Amino acid sequence: MSRVRVHNFSVSIDGFATGEGQTLEDPFGHAGHRLHEWFFPTRTCQRMQGNEDGSTGVDEAVAHTWNVGVGAEIMGRNKFGAERGPWENHDWNGWWGTNPPFHTPVFVLTHHPRPSVEMEGGTTFHFIDATPQEALRQAREAAGGLDVRIGGGPTTVRQFLAEDLVDHLHIAVVPIVLGRGERLWDGLEGLDERFQVESVTTPSGVTHMTFTRP
Amino acid sequence: MSRVRVHNFSVSIDGFATGEGQTLEDPFGHAGHRLHEWFFPTRTCQRMQGNEDGSTGVDEAVAHTWNVGVGAEIMGRNKFGAERGPWENHDWNGWWGTNPPFHTPVFVLTHHPRPSVEMEGGTTFHFIDATPQEALRQAREAAGGLDVRIGGGPTTVRQFLAEDLVDHLHIAVVPIVLGRGERLWDGLEGLDERFQVESVTTPSGVTHMTFTRP
Repeated sequence: MSRVRVHNFSVSIDGFATGEGQTLEDPFGHAGHRLHEWFFPTRTCQRMQGNEDGSTGVDEAVAHTWNVGVGAEIMGRNKFGAERGPWENHDWNGWWGTNPPFHTPVFVLTHHPRPSVEMEGGTTFHFIDATPQEALRQAREAAGGLDVRIGGGPTTVRQFLAEDLVDHLHIAVVPIVLGRGERLWDGLEGLDERFQVESVTTPSGVTHMTFTRP
Repeated sequence: MSRVRVHNFSVSIDGFATGEGQTLEDPFGHAGHRLHEWFFPTRTCQRMQGNEDGSTGVDEAVAHTWNVGVGAEIMGRNKFGAERGPWENHDWNGWWGTNPPFHTPVFVLTHHPRPSVEMEGGTTFHFIDATPQEALRQAREAAGGLDVRIGGGPTTVRQFLAEDLVDHLHIAVVPIVLGRGERLWDGLEGLDERFQVESVTTPSGVTHMTFTRP
Protein backbone atom coordinates (compact mmCIF):
# COMPACT_ATOMS: atom_id res chain seq x y z
CA MET A 1 0.00 0.00 0.00
CA SER A 2 1.34 3.40 -0.99
CA ARG A 3 2.00 5.46 2.15
CA VAL A 4 2.02 9.21 2.70
CA ARG A 5 5.18 10.44 4.39
CA VAL A 6 6.70 13.60 5.82
CA HIS A 7 10.50 13.72 6.36
CA ASN A 8 13.18 15.99 7.76
CA PHE A 9 10.61 18.48 8.90
CA SER A 10 12.24 20.80 11.44
CA VAL A 11 10.24 22.50 14.16
CA SER A 12 11.44 24.77 16.96
CA ILE A 13 10.60 23.89 20.57
CA ASP A 14 7.93 26.57 20.46
CA GLY A 15 6.34 24.85 17.47
CA PHE A 16 7.34 27.01 14.50
CA ALA A 17 8.38 25.29 11.28
CA THR A 18 9.35 28.49 9.52
CA GLY A 19 10.09 32.04 10.60
CA GLU A 20 8.43 35.33 9.78
CA GLY A 21 9.19 37.32 6.62
CA GLN A 22 9.95 34.88 3.81
CA THR A 23 11.88 36.43 0.92
CA LEU A 24 13.81 35.06 -2.06
CA GLU A 25 16.98 35.44 -0.01
CA ASP A 26 15.53 33.97 3.19
CA PRO A 27 13.14 31.09 2.42
CA PHE A 28 12.65 30.56 6.17
CA GLY A 29 12.37 34.24 7.07
CA HIS A 30 13.98 35.35 10.32
CA ALA A 31 14.72 31.71 11.19
CA GLY A 32 17.57 31.84 8.68
CA HIS A 33 19.43 28.53 8.70
CA ARG A 34 18.78 27.76 12.38
CA LEU A 35 16.09 25.14 11.83
CA HIS A 36 18.27 23.10 9.48
CA GLU A 37 21.78 23.26 10.89
CA TRP A 38 21.49 19.61 11.93
CA PHE A 39 20.75 18.68 8.29
CA PHE A 40 23.54 20.51 6.44
CA PRO A 41 26.42 18.24 7.49
CA THR A 42 24.60 15.04 6.52
CA ARG A 43 25.64 13.15 3.41
CA THR A 44 22.04 13.45 2.19
CA CYS A 45 22.24 17.23 2.22
CA GLN A 46 25.83 17.39 0.98
CA ARG A 47 25.04 15.23 -2.03
CA MET A 48 22.15 17.55 -2.90
CA GLN A 49 24.83 20.27 -3.17
CA GLY A 50 27.01 18.10 -5.39
CA ASN A 51 29.53 17.16 -2.68
CA GLU A 52 30.60 13.58 -2.13
CA ASP A 53 31.28 13.67 1.61
CA GLY A 54 29.00 14.25 4.55
CA SER A 55 28.26 12.85 8.00
CA THR A 56 27.06 9.27 8.28
CA GLY A 57 25.81 9.11 11.87
CA VAL A 58 22.28 8.96 13.21
CA ASP A 59 21.21 12.31 11.74
CA GLU A 60 22.16 10.94 8.30
CA ALA A 61 20.52 7.58 8.99
CA VAL A 62 17.25 9.36 9.69
CA ALA A 63 17.63 12.00 6.97
CA HIS A 64 18.47 9.71 4.08
CA THR A 65 15.16 7.84 4.17
CA TRP A 66 13.36 10.92 2.83
CA ASN A 67 13.51 9.84 -0.81
CA VAL A 68 13.58 6.03 -0.47
CA GLY A 69 10.53 4.51 -2.12
CA VAL A 70 8.98 7.89 -2.86
CA GLY A 71 7.37 8.36 -6.27
CA ALA A 72 5.93 11.87 -5.99
CA GLU A 73 5.92 14.92 -3.75
CA ILE A 74 3.20 17.37 -2.85
CA MET A 75 4.32 20.78 -1.66
CA GLY A 76 2.66 24.06 -0.81
CA ARG A 77 3.32 27.06 -2.97
CA ASN A 78 5.24 28.79 -0.16
CA LYS A 79 7.81 26.00 -0.27
CA PHE A 80 8.14 26.54 -4.01
CA GLY A 81 8.68 30.27 -3.88
CA ALA A 82 8.29 33.58 -2.07
CA GLU A 83 5.84 35.13 -4.56
CA ARG A 84 2.14 35.30 -3.60
CA GLY A 85 -0.98 35.75 -5.72
CA PRO A 86 -1.00 35.48 -9.55
CA TRP A 87 2.34 34.36 -11.00
CA GLU A 88 4.38 37.24 -12.35
CA ASN A 89 7.83 35.70 -12.43
CA HIS A 90 7.40 32.70 -14.75
CA ASP A 91 11.16 32.13 -14.75
CA TRP A 92 11.10 31.13 -11.08
CA ASN A 93 11.26 27.36 -10.77
CA GLY A 94 12.05 26.94 -7.12
CA TRP A 95 15.10 27.28 -4.90
CA TRP A 96 16.79 24.15 -6.21
CA GLY A 97 18.47 25.12 -9.50
CA THR A 98 18.07 23.34 -12.83
CA ASN A 99 18.33 19.82 -11.33
CA PRO A 100 16.14 19.73 -8.20
CA PRO A 101 16.76 16.94 -5.67
CA PHE A 102 13.30 15.40 -6.01
CA HIS A 103 13.71 13.42 -9.26
CA THR A 104 9.95 12.68 -9.33
CA PRO A 105 6.76 14.52 -10.22
CA VAL A 106 6.14 17.34 -7.72
CA PHE A 107 2.64 18.73 -7.24
CA VAL A 108 2.64 22.36 -6.13
CA LEU A 109 -0.61 23.40 -4.46
CA THR A 110 -1.67 26.85 -5.64
CA HIS A 111 -4.84 28.78 -6.32
CA HIS A 112 -3.13 29.96 -9.52
CA PRO A 113 -2.42 26.98 -11.80
CA ARG A 114 0.18 27.40 -14.56
CA PRO A 115 1.72 25.04 -17.11
CA SER A 116 3.87 22.18 -15.85
CA VAL A 117 7.63 22.63 -15.91
CA GLU A 118 9.98 19.78 -16.67
CA MET A 119 13.37 20.12 -14.97
CA GLU A 120 16.57 18.12 -15.36
CA GLY A 121 16.94 14.84 -13.49
CA GLY A 122 13.34 13.70 -13.57
CA THR A 123 11.64 16.42 -11.57
CA THR A 124 8.48 17.85 -13.12
CA PHE A 125 6.55 20.58 -11.33
CA HIS A 126 2.78 20.42 -11.73
CA PHE A 127 0.75 23.35 -10.41
CA ILE A 128 -2.68 22.35 -9.19
CA ASP A 129 -5.57 23.95 -7.29
CA ALA A 130 -6.88 20.96 -5.34
CA THR A 131 -8.01 19.68 -1.95
CA PRO A 132 -5.54 17.50 -0.06
CA GLN A 133 -7.55 14.42 -1.08
CA GLU A 134 -7.57 15.31 -4.78
CA ALA A 135 -3.89 16.29 -4.76
CA LEU A 136 -3.10 12.96 -3.12
CA ARG A 137 -5.11 11.09 -5.75
CA GLN A 138 -3.13 12.74 -8.54
CA ALA A 139 0.19 12.26 -6.76
CA ARG A 140 -0.54 8.58 -6.07
CA GLU A 141 -1.33 8.04 -9.72
CA ALA A 142 1.91 9.73 -10.72
CA ALA A 143 3.88 7.78 -8.11
CA GLY A 144 3.12 4.47 -9.78
CA GLY A 145 2.58 2.53 -6.58
CA LEU A 146 5.39 4.18 -4.63
CA ASP A 147 4.89 6.43 -1.60
CA VAL A 148 3.94 10.09 -1.70
CA ARG A 149 5.90 12.63 0.30
CA ILE A 150 4.29 15.78 1.70
CA GLY A 151 7.22 18.17 1.38
CA GLY A 152 5.98 21.19 3.35
CA GLY A 153 5.67 23.99 4.26
CA PRO A 154 3.89 23.94 7.60
CA THR A 155 0.46 24.89 6.26
CA THR A 156 0.50 22.02 3.81
CA VAL A 157 1.75 19.45 6.32
CA ARG A 158 -0.81 20.65 8.84
CA GLN A 159 -3.63 20.32 6.30
CA PHE A 160 -2.73 16.73 5.47
CA LEU A 161 -2.37 15.86 9.17
CA ALA A 162 -5.72 17.47 9.96
CA GLU A 163 -7.33 15.28 7.28
CA ASP A 164 -5.57 12.24 8.76
CA LEU A 165 -3.87 11.51 5.44
CA VAL A 166 -0.33 11.08 6.77
CA ASP A 167 1.07 7.62 7.61
CA HIS A 168 4.63 8.52 8.59
CA LEU A 169 5.72 11.84 10.09
CA HIS A 170 9.33 12.61 10.92
CA ILE A 171 9.88 15.78 12.90
CA ALA A 172 13.25 17.15 13.99
CA VAL A 173 12.67 19.23 17.10
CA VAL A 174 15.34 21.94 17.20
CA PRO A 175 16.12 23.43 20.63
CA ILE A 176 15.57 27.05 19.70
CA VAL A 177 12.78 29.45 20.64
CA LEU A 178 11.86 30.99 17.30
CA GLY A 179 9.14 33.21 18.72
CA ARG A 180 7.22 33.88 15.51
CA GLY A 181 6.49 32.42 12.11
CA GLU A 182 4.22 29.61 11.09
CA ARG A 183 3.16 27.01 13.67
CA LEU A 184 2.97 23.35 12.75
CA TRP A 185 0.81 22.00 15.59
CA ASP A 186 -2.14 24.41 15.58
CA GLY A 187 -5.48 22.67 15.26
CA LEU A 188 -3.96 19.21 15.73
CA GLU A 189 -4.97 18.53 19.35
CA GLY A 190 -4.71 14.83 20.14
CA LEU A 191 -2.65 14.07 17.02
CA ASP A 192 -0.37 11.79 19.07
CA GLU A 193 -3.28 9.47 19.87
CA ARG A 194 -3.46 8.40 16.22
CA PHE A 195 0.20 7.42 16.07
CA GLN A 196 2.95 5.46 17.72
CA VAL A 197 5.54 8.05 18.68
CA GLU A 198 9.27 7.45 19.09
CA SER A 199 11.93 10.00 19.96
CA VAL A 200 15.71 9.98 19.87
CA THR A 201 18.13 12.79 20.55
CA THR A 202 21.38 13.03 18.59
CA PRO A 203 24.62 14.87 19.37
CA SER A 204 23.62 17.66 16.97
CA GLY A 205 21.11 18.60 19.66
CA VAL A 206 17.90 17.83 17.78
CA THR A 207 15.30 15.27 18.79
CA HIS A 208 14.09 13.13 15.93
CA MET A 209 10.47 12.15 16.44
CA THR A 210 8.67 9.62 14.27
CA PHE A 211 4.89 9.33 14.22
CA THR A 212 3.89 6.04 12.61
CA ARG A 213 0.63 4.16 12.35
CA PRO A 214 0.26 1.73 15.27
CA MET B 1 26.34 31.93 44.53
CA SER B 2 22.67 31.07 45.03
CA ARG B 3 21.15 29.99 41.73
CA VAL B 4 17.58 30.15 40.46
CA ARG B 5 16.34 26.84 39.13
CA VAL B 6 13.33 25.28 37.40
CA HIS B 7 12.89 21.50 37.53
CA ASN B 8 10.62 18.77 36.20
CA PHE B 9 8.66 21.24 34.17
CA SER B 10 6.66 19.34 31.56
CA VAL B 11 5.71 20.90 28.25
CA SER B 12 3.84 19.36 25.31
CA ILE B 13 5.45 19.44 21.85
CA ASP B 14 3.10 22.26 20.98
CA GLY B 15 4.42 24.26 23.92
CA PHE B 16 1.67 24.01 26.53
CA ALA B 17 2.67 23.49 30.16
CA THR B 18 -0.88 23.12 31.39
CA GLY B 19 -4.24 22.46 29.80
CA GLU B 20 -7.41 24.49 29.66
CA GLY B 21 -10.00 24.51 32.45
CA GLN B 22 -8.21 24.12 35.78
CA THR B 23 -10.45 22.90 38.61
CA LEU B 24 -9.85 21.47 42.07
CA GLU B 25 -10.21 18.00 40.56
CA ASP B 26 -8.05 18.72 37.52
CA PRO B 27 -5.11 20.96 38.42
CA PHE B 28 -3.86 20.70 34.82
CA GLY B 29 -7.27 21.08 33.18
CA HIS B 30 -7.97 18.97 30.11
CA ALA B 31 -4.32 17.79 30.10
CA GLY B 32 -5.21 15.50 32.98
CA HIS B 33 -2.17 13.43 33.95
CA ARG B 34 -0.72 13.30 30.46
CA LEU B 35 2.05 15.83 31.01
CA HIS B 36 3.40 14.00 34.05
CA GLU B 37 3.11 10.31 33.27
CA TRP B 38 6.89 10.12 32.93
CA PHE B 39 7.25 11.47 36.49
CA PHE B 40 4.83 9.24 38.41
CA PRO B 41 6.92 6.04 38.35
CA THR B 42 10.08 7.78 39.59
CA ARG B 43 11.25 7.22 43.14
CA THR B 44 11.13 11.00 43.65
CA CYS B 45 7.41 11.07 42.90
CA GLN B 46 6.63 7.82 44.69
CA ARG B 47 8.30 9.03 47.89
CA MET B 48 6.19 12.19 47.75
CA GLN B 49 3.20 9.84 47.95
CA GLY B 50 4.67 7.96 50.89
CA ASN B 51 5.82 4.93 48.91
CA GLU B 52 9.30 3.50 49.28
CA ASP B 53 9.80 2.09 45.80
CA GLY B 54 9.99 3.78 42.44
CA SER B 55 12.06 3.75 39.25
CA THR B 56 15.74 4.60 39.47
CA GLY B 57 16.69 5.11 35.81
CA VAL B 58 17.46 8.30 33.93
CA ASP B 59 14.03 9.88 34.51
CA GLU B 60 14.65 9.52 38.24
CA ALA B 61 18.25 10.73 37.96
CA VAL B 62 16.99 13.92 36.35
CA ALA B 63 13.88 14.27 38.53
CA HIS B 64 15.51 13.84 41.93
CA THR B 65 17.75 16.91 41.62
CA TRP B 66 14.71 19.17 42.00
CA ASN B 67 15.10 19.64 45.76
CA VAL B 68 18.86 19.21 46.17
CA GLY B 69 20.39 22.40 47.51
CA VAL B 70 17.11 24.31 47.31
CA GLY B 71 16.23 26.57 50.23
CA ALA B 72 13.02 28.19 49.02
CA GLU B 73 10.43 27.99 46.25
CA ILE B 74 8.50 30.68 44.41
CA MET B 75 5.24 29.59 42.80
CA GLY B 76 2.38 31.32 41.05
CA ARG B 77 -1.02 31.33 42.64
CA ASN B 78 -2.41 29.02 39.97
CA LYS B 79 0.01 26.31 41.06
CA PHE B 80 -1.23 26.73 44.62
CA GLY B 81 -4.94 26.47 43.87
CA ALA B 82 -7.79 26.76 41.41
CA GLU B 83 -9.47 29.76 43.06
CA ARG B 84 -9.06 33.20 41.45
CA GLY B 85 -9.55 36.70 42.89
CA PRO B 86 -9.96 37.44 46.63
CA TRP B 87 -9.51 34.37 48.84
CA GLU B 88 -12.78 32.84 49.93
CA ASN B 89 -11.66 29.37 50.91
CA HIS B 90 -9.09 30.00 53.65
CA ASP B 91 -8.94 26.29 54.42
CA TRP B 92 -7.31 25.56 51.07
CA ASN B 93 -3.60 25.06 51.53
CA GLY B 94 -2.61 23.53 48.23
CA TRP B 95 -2.87 20.16 46.55
CA TRP B 96 -0.24 18.53 48.71
CA GLY B 97 -1.96 17.59 51.99
CA THR B 98 -0.76 18.49 55.47
CA ASN B 99 2.90 17.68 54.79
CA PRO B 100 3.79 19.20 51.40
CA PRO B 101 6.90 17.91 49.61
CA PHE B 102 8.73 21.26 49.62
CA HIS B 103 10.04 21.33 53.23
CA THR B 104 11.18 24.95 52.78
CA PRO B 105 9.58 28.38 52.72
CA VAL B 106 7.33 28.73 49.65
CA PHE B 107 6.44 32.16 48.30
CA VAL B 108 3.09 32.23 46.51
CA LEU B 109 2.72 35.16 44.13
CA THR B 110 -0.74 36.69 44.41
CA HIS B 111 -2.39 40.08 44.15
CA HIS B 112 -4.31 39.09 47.30
CA PRO B 113 -1.87 38.65 50.21
CA ARG B 114 -3.05 36.67 53.24
CA PRO B 115 -1.34 35.46 56.43
CA SER B 116 1.42 32.90 56.12
CA VAL B 117 0.54 29.26 56.79
CA GLU B 118 2.94 26.89 58.49
CA MET B 119 2.52 23.27 57.39
CA GLU B 120 4.04 20.05 58.71
CA GLY B 121 7.53 19.08 57.59
CA GLY B 122 9.06 22.52 57.26
CA THR B 123 6.93 24.02 54.49
CA THR B 124 5.61 27.53 55.16
CA PHE B 125 3.47 29.27 52.56
CA HIS B 126 3.98 33.03 52.31
CA PHE B 127 1.57 34.98 50.12
CA ILE B 128 3.15 38.03 48.52
CA ASP B 129 2.25 40.60 45.89
CA ALA B 130 5.64 41.27 44.36
CA THR B 131 7.63 41.64 41.15
CA PRO B 132 9.83 38.70 40.17
CA GLN B 133 12.88 40.62 41.41
CA GLU B 134 11.34 41.43 44.80
CA ALA B 135 9.99 37.90 45.23
CA LEU B 136 13.45 36.56 44.47
CA ARG B 137 15.04 38.89 47.00
CA GLN B 138 12.71 37.62 49.72
CA ALA B 139 13.13 33.98 48.67
CA ARG B 140 16.93 34.29 48.60
CA GLU B 141 16.90 35.74 52.09
CA ALA B 142 14.71 32.87 53.30
CA ALA B 143 16.87 30.29 51.52
CA GLY B 144 19.89 31.12 53.64
CA GLY B 145 22.43 30.88 50.85
CA LEU B 146 20.83 27.88 49.12
CA ASP B 147 19.24 27.96 45.67
CA VAL B 148 15.72 29.18 44.87
CA ARG B 149 13.38 27.07 42.78
CA ILE B 150 10.73 28.61 40.53
CA GLY B 151 8.01 26.00 40.88
CA GLY B 152 5.56 27.07 38.17
CA GLY B 153 3.04 27.41 36.70
CA PRO B 154 3.84 28.49 33.19
CA THR B 155 3.06 32.17 33.68
CA THR B 156 5.43 32.39 36.62
CA VAL B 157 8.24 30.48 34.92
CA ARG B 158 7.80 32.61 31.80
CA GLN B 159 7.99 35.83 33.83
CA PHE B 160 11.24 34.82 35.48
CA LEU B 161 12.71 33.69 32.15
CA ALA B 162 11.65 36.94 30.49
CA GLU B 163 13.48 38.88 33.21
CA ASP B 164 16.54 36.63 32.68
CA LEU B 165 16.48 35.56 36.34
CA VAL B 166 16.74 31.79 35.75
CA ASP B 167 20.12 30.01 35.86
CA HIS B 168 19.01 26.40 35.36
CA LEU B 169 15.92 25.30 33.46
CA HIS B 170 14.89 21.67 33.16
CA ILE B 171 12.08 20.98 30.71
CA ALA B 172 10.57 17.57 29.98
CA VAL B 173 9.15 17.70 26.47
CA VAL B 174 6.21 15.29 26.32
CA PRO B 175 5.28 13.96 22.85
CA ILE B 176 1.63 14.97 22.95
CA VAL B 177 -0.24 17.71 21.09
CA LEU B 178 -2.23 19.37 23.85
CA GLY B 179 -3.86 21.93 21.57
CA ARG B 180 -4.86 24.49 24.20
CA GLY B 181 -3.95 25.73 27.63
CA GLU B 182 -1.11 27.93 28.76
CA ARG B 183 1.99 28.27 26.61
CA LEU B 184 5.45 28.36 28.17
CA TRP B 185 7.49 29.83 25.31
CA ASP B 186 5.47 32.89 24.35
CA GLY B 187 7.48 36.10 24.39
CA LEU B 188 10.77 34.25 24.87
CA GLU B 189 12.19 34.48 21.33
CA GLY B 190 15.92 33.80 21.34
CA LEU B 191 15.90 32.32 24.86
CA ASP B 192 18.22 29.53 23.73
CA GLU B 193 20.96 32.05 22.89
CA ARG B 194 21.39 32.84 26.59
CA PHE B 195 21.90 29.21 27.58
CA GLN B 196 23.80 26.07 26.84
CA VAL B 197 21.16 23.52 25.87
CA GLU B 198 21.42 19.75 26.26
CA SER B 199 18.77 17.17 25.37
CA VAL B 200 18.34 13.50 26.14
CA THR B 201 15.44 11.21 25.36
CA THR B 202 14.52 8.43 27.77
CA PRO B 203 12.49 5.25 27.23
CA SER B 204 9.44 6.90 28.82
CA GLY B 205 9.29 8.93 25.61
CA VAL B 206 10.07 12.36 27.01
CA THR B 207 13.03 14.51 26.08
CA HIS B 208 14.76 16.09 29.04
CA MET B 209 16.23 19.46 28.11
CA THR B 210 18.50 21.45 30.38
CA PHE B 211 19.20 25.11 29.81
CA THR B 212 22.23 26.17 31.84
CA ARG B 213 24.37 29.28 31.86
CA PRO B 214 27.35 28.90 29.48
